[in-house]
Amino acid sequence: MSKSLPKRSENYSEWYNELVKRADLAENSGVKGCMVIKPYGYAIWEKMQAVLDKKFKETGHSNAYFPLFVPKSLFEAEEKNAEGFAKECAIVTHYRLKNDPDKKGKLIVDPDAKLEEELIVRPTSEAIIWNTYRGWVQSHRDLPLLINQWANVVRWEMKTRLFLRTAEFLWQEGHTAHATEVEAVEEVKKMLEVYANFAESYMALPVIRGVKSANERFAGAVDTYCIEALMQDGKALQAGTSHFLGQNFAKAFDVKYSDKNNKLEYVWGTSWGVSTRLMGALIMAHSDDEGLVLPPMLAPIQVVIVPIFKGEEQLDAIAVIATKIKQDLEAKGISVKFDHSDKYSPGFKFAEYELKGVPLRIAIGPRDLEKGTVELARRDTKTKETVSTENIDTKIEALLKEIQDSIFKKAEDFKTQNTTTVDSYSEFKKVLEEKAGFVLAHWDGTSETEEKIKEETKATIRCIPLDFKEEQGVCVYSGKPSKGRVVFAIAY
Amino acid sequence: MSKSLPKRSENYSEWYNELVKRADLAENSGVKGCMVIKPYGYAIWEKMQAVLDKKFKETGHSNAYFPLFVPKSLFEAEEKNAEGFAKECAIVTHYRLKNDPDKKGKLIVDPDAKLEEELIVRPTSEAIIWNTYRGWVQSHRDLPLLINQWANVVRWEMKTRLFLRTAEFLWQEGHTAHATEVEAVEEVKKMLEVYANFAESYMALPVIRGVKSANERFAGAVDTYCIEALMQDGKALQAGTSHFLGQNFAKAFDVKYSDKNNKLEYVWGTSWGVSTRLMGALIMAHSDDEGLVLPPMLAPIQVVIVPIFKGEEQLDAIAVIATKIKQDLEAKGISVKFDHSDKYSPGFKFAEYELKGVPLRIAIGPRDLEKGTVELARRDTKTKETVSTENIDTKIEALLKEIQDSIFKKAEDFKTQNTTTVDSYSEFKKVLEEKAGFVLAHWDGTSETEEKIKEETKATIRCIPLDFKEEQGVCVYSGKPSKGRVVFAIAY
Repeated sequence: MSKSLPKRSENYSEWYNELVKRADLAENSGVKGCMVIKPYGYAIWEKMQAVLDKKFKETGHSNAYFPLFVPKSLFEAEEKNAEGFAKECAIVTHYRLKNDPDKKGKLIVDPDAKLEEELIVRPTSEAIIWNTYRGWVQSHRDLPLLINQWANVVRWEMKTRLFLRTAEFLWQEGHTAHATEVEAVEEVKKMLEVYANFAESYMALPVIRGVKSANERFAGAVDTYCIEALMQDGKALQAGTSHFLGQNFAKAFDVKYSDKNNKLEYVWGTSWGVSTRLMGALIMAHSDDEGLVLPPMLAPIQVVIVPIFKGEEQLDAIAVIATKIKQDLEAKGISVKFDHSDKYSPGFKFAEYELKGVPLRIAIGPRDLEKGTVELARRDTKTKETVSTENIDTKIEALLKEIQDSIFKKAEDFKTQNTTTVDSYSEFKKVLEEKAGFVLAHWDGTSETEEKIKEETKATIRCIPLDFKEEQGVCVYSGKPSKGRVVFAIAY
Repeated sequence: MSKSLPKRSENYSEWYNELVKRADLAENSGVKGCMVIKPYGYAIWEKMQAVLDKKFKETGHSNAYFPLFVPKSLFEAEEKNAEGFAKECAIVTHYRLKNDPDKKGKLIVDPDAKLEEELIVRPTSEAIIWNTYRGWVQSHRDLPLLINQWANVVRWEMKTRLFLRTAEFLWQEGHTAHATEVEAVEEVKKMLEVYANFAESYMALPVIRGVKSANERFAGAVDTYCIEALMQDGKALQAGTSHFLGQNFAKAFDVKYSDKNNKLEYVWGTSWGVSTRLMGALIMAHSDDEGLVLPPMLAPIQVVIVPIFKGEEQLDAIAVIATKIKQDLEAKGISVKFDHSDKYSPGFKFAEYELKGVPLRIAIGPRDLEKGTVELARRDTKTKETVSTENIDTKIEALLKEIQDSIFKKAEDFKTQNTTTVDSYSEFKKVLEEKAGFVLAHWDGTSETEEKIKEETKATIRCIPLDFKEEQGVCVYSGKPSKGRVVFAIAY
């Protein structure tokens, strides 16, 4: 609390790292690349989980749990998927330690406890789940299978950043099986919309819905749908993906069903996931140089009440009003903290709750008591007003909605201002250098061009937007014909 | 559904295994010793989690998340803890696979990607968490630290059984740090009582609260408190533990705080956990030869409505009443399934919901429509009655409470009948052979006697009960003096 945060304009990356740590969201652990999610950070994640879990259940999905480990032979079964993850896998090879004969009190891996078959710590669970689905699907009556799991996964990344890229992360992964291609594609789109709606309505984060180019597709998918968001530094962040797997995993794991005519057919698959990466998106999209800015829908504490007092008598008087306000707000489902501790000064508390992104602060001092008022301070706009305590619960309820909308609107305006349509490669590069953001440009549809552009500018195709408009043009890079603009950006 | 379950009286162990599979609770996976928790089983676990999580938060705890992996050097730091888990650890030694040069499409572990330090997949998280707490605790103002995590853990068991003993299982682990020994011991007891209350009030499972003998203590703890339950085959099952860690981990990981006089002191620790093992206890304690018997408080479906109809017209008429009942019950927070599918006969459905332990079944046929009645069938007692639909929601609400109490009462009577006080070793052995259950006997307090008894009878000391009464006597085994009776049993 003593030192202020680095400024976004000076060092966005350091601002982010420091903010995550100082706001008690997460920190690095004693394990390379793995993070500790601290209670305040985890409370935000729990709010995200609760909303998403409800949406998954409302769309007919059930939760289940599948093993952490994938035997190597299963891992290999879907070749493209295996190839995509082989280079970043944690591998269990032994199942026992023993005393180090040379160093008392130390342990070594027991060479006699080598596994016959190595186990891969799941980087994603298609293999282990589809191997299970073979036993669950016989008849068309068993379909669709609509299952989700909340789990930890491990991808051995060399360069890691809290929430954005960590060796272990938390996520949910939906895995569904359907009788027909049409149903599977419908599911893929439905879940993409669940994610997009969550991002926009809860995270206050406007997103572009789209489909990945072949280069950026999930390993083992036929098509990867995605939502892409824009951060304040002009970089894009993939916030969620929904994959149409075709019959790839059904074939690799021999998952067939007998249709109404008793004919055996392979099922059609989907998978979709969002992870603790969303925490990174939430933090980076809205926060400012004083700290977090949390949309009320996901704030663990929506309103904090800070008393300004000298001595117990004043505190007691303020506590009467504060407790009443707290109760009234809680009756409306609003989460409130009344911070009456005398360990820290009001000024210290103000800064602390600003850092932690509490959307609304109520300050109550002795003069307020006389006048029947309180001071209301908005975290997002940093505006303050003195209001009467009469009907304050209704006022605050409305204000929280207004804050939610206002944070979204600000992010949306930012996205609009930072989405640029370009028609030449020089313009393309200029925009990337000067303001970054989303760049809409014609592309000839080849992986070759995409790779060249990436090499030269670091920008990748984030997606072919779902609201893609057919429009004749020429590729900004190759000059070859193009049927429409795709979304480029430099991405996290 | 075709074959009936094995009978408990004939083969309790096979009855359990088959029940778990047929009721769609869990199954073995493609990974040795690891289970798949199926949607219906997971729904029960989610209900358990929700209740426990609420209780943890009400007692001041916050959730957080710590890494899956523990570097070997941290794992070793608390020697007794390390020794206790060293022989059952999954160990990650490599972080990459590569193409097998000899077999196309196959992968092998890349020898160039060997980790400098091996990582242990957490069998429990004291080491990684206490290593983190060192950074979180400076002053007495930082205490107590009251943290819980929901996570998966791995203990490499050779003989596994679904839910009861699996290589990977799900659990929660609370880890707290306190300024004083008194506070830490209070926490240990408080959380034991949270577990005991959960077992009794939600799982309908009466438990003995007690303290473990030195032999059965958690590796690294000063004292292990536990709750012990009795299964229908007379074997005991440890349902939850709460450990007083003293300053063992604080010293191993150098976690100190400065007290009000600025003196540096080691903190005092606790840890406590329950796992998916509770699922095993729940299943084994109440179920019968027809299937699961679930206490209403933890049943994913509390009431099922089965229509008995021929043709759509009858179904439509029944659906009007069924839907009304469903809505009224749901308004009271009761979960209801109206199974109007025409894929299966009513008889098939009856058996299916019996197998799945749905506490109450409502059957509605054409005659019921005429009379304004329905048939209510209790799963636990298998009694049926025809009741008027008038105020049926109130009646059902009361009946669910009655069922909950009745299941508890039955289990408690069973426990009472199967708790035997013995005064000689021959009596001790006779009881174990003939009826098993809890055996209350004098013990001389030595590990040696405890081990001898275990060797000869397989019985272990489940606990020294918290309601231990001082009573002069002689040890049933050694004849040496004893101050009171402890609880013996053959345990899962």
